[in-house]
Amino acid sequence: MPSIDSDTHLLIGALIFEDMDQCDLTGPFEALSRVPNATFKTIAKDTTPIRDLRGLRILPDLSIEDAPQLDVLLVPGGYGQEALMDDEQVIAFLRRQARHARYIFSVCTGALLCGAAGLLEGKRATTHWTAMEVLPLFGADPVNDRVVIDGNLISTGGVTAGIDGSLTVVSLLRGNEAAEEIQLYMAYDPKTPFTAGSPETAPPRVLRTVTERAKAITERRMDTGRRYQRSRQHETSADR
Amino acid sequence: MPSIDSDTHLLIGALIFEDMDQCDLTGPFEALSRVPNATFKTIAKDTTPIRDLRGLRILPDLSIEDAPQLDVLLVPGGYGQEALMDDEQVIAFLRRQARHARYIFSVCTGALLCGAAGLLEGKRATTHWTAMEVLPLFGADPVNDRVVIDGNLISTGGVTAGIDGSLTVVSLLRGNEAAEEIQLYMAYDPKTPFTAGSPETAPPRVLRTVTERAKAITERRMDTGRRYQRSRQHETSADR
Repeated sequence: MPSIDSDTHLLIGALIFEDMDQCDLTGPFEALSRVPNATFKTIAKDTTPIRDLRGLRILPDLSIEDAPQLDVLLVPGGYGQEALMDDEQVIAFLRRQARHARYIFSVCTGALLCGAAGLLEGKRATTHWTAMEVLPLFGADPVNDRVVIDGNLISTGGVTAGIDGSLTVVSLLRGNEAAEEIQLYMAYDPKTPFTAGSPETAPPRVLRTVTERAKAITERRMDTGRRYQRSRQHETSADR
Repeated sequence: MPSIDSDTHLLIGALIFEDMDQCDLTGPFEALSRVPNATFKTIAKDTTPIRDLRGLRILPDLSIEDAPQLDVLLVPGGYGQEALMDDEQVIAFLRRQARHARYIFSVCTGALLCGAAGLLEGKRATTHWTAMEVLPLFGADPVNDRVVIDGNLISTGGVTAGIDGSLTVVSLLRGNEAAEEIQLYMAYDPKTPFTAGSPETAPPRVLRTVTERAKAITERRMDTGRRYQRSRQHETSADR
């Protein structure tokens, strides 16, 4: 049963940004934009269109400056997440929203953005499989599950895991039947034509190729994580 | 093995339109925009942003007028498909592309748009489960599968079936390993939190609710289909 009165209107929003992975937004949008008695808004640093890392252009509804307090904030990932890890406006927005949001919902490497905002400290969390080793640098306890819930933080694995996670979020907000109705509308009864969707099931050669392709971005993410960790240790010792 | 030389650059495009279901585009975009040696363009009646039926705004790359011949044309669906069933510019575009495209790839009720362009005549095809009964009015043989291939027509069931279909399209264009690499990147190893993704598996009450909700649009689609059928019969008798 959902914990929220069905008469309470819910405001759901997603941070969107240049070089994000569009599916981290659009998969969950399909479910979350259908939550009964709720509104969904896309939010960016400003209201000019953003371009996802493969070129799809999406228009933000609101700027961060104009965004109200949300009930649920979706934080997608994608290579462009790295450029925001030190962005004071974005980090302040995430922290501000996290204080009163019912849920922070990270998809894929959106978890790393949450990490940069300090939202992963002491939390169980997940992310894209290529970035799992980055999570501990942000104080998180990495969990190799598709959807991980720890308090008000819901994190999912890579890209399409956001679809599974979004149905979980719908059920937390409005109950299982609302989630099932949306799942049926979305015809979400997957039949994958190949068996290669996780490191555990992909053929070894496919795993090697995709890991190698992600190597440069993974190294950048590790460097950023180490930098975060050093600055936290510095803060902690300064506090003593 | 794919039938196309890997040195041949492929042009992939999607028709996009007002009140489409964004996931019919964005699910397949995630895979098709990663096809090796290929370009993906969104194409609309003009280049002003379109708004999906839940409000997500997407920018077209090209107008129909400026669109070149494509190797693959993705035709998404959603309620807005009805408004284009008699749109001469759109119907002519679909017919023109279908003559030389390697594949026409319909997702969800995008199949009905293909039907209005005469592309379903004598073909096995599928669509969103609420619209299956509309297919025969366009001369199609409806098949209750998630992905149906008949010659150069690849059609999928509702919304998220487009993700499964797009991996099939990748494999036809560039081979199974290319599809598997993309699947692994997308972490497409679905674990649905509920079992309600098809009319066969959804709880009866959920099925009743969602069917009832779709009733008005289903009736409009049936009316349009009957109109198409009458005009085809008229043409055929005039040809005799």
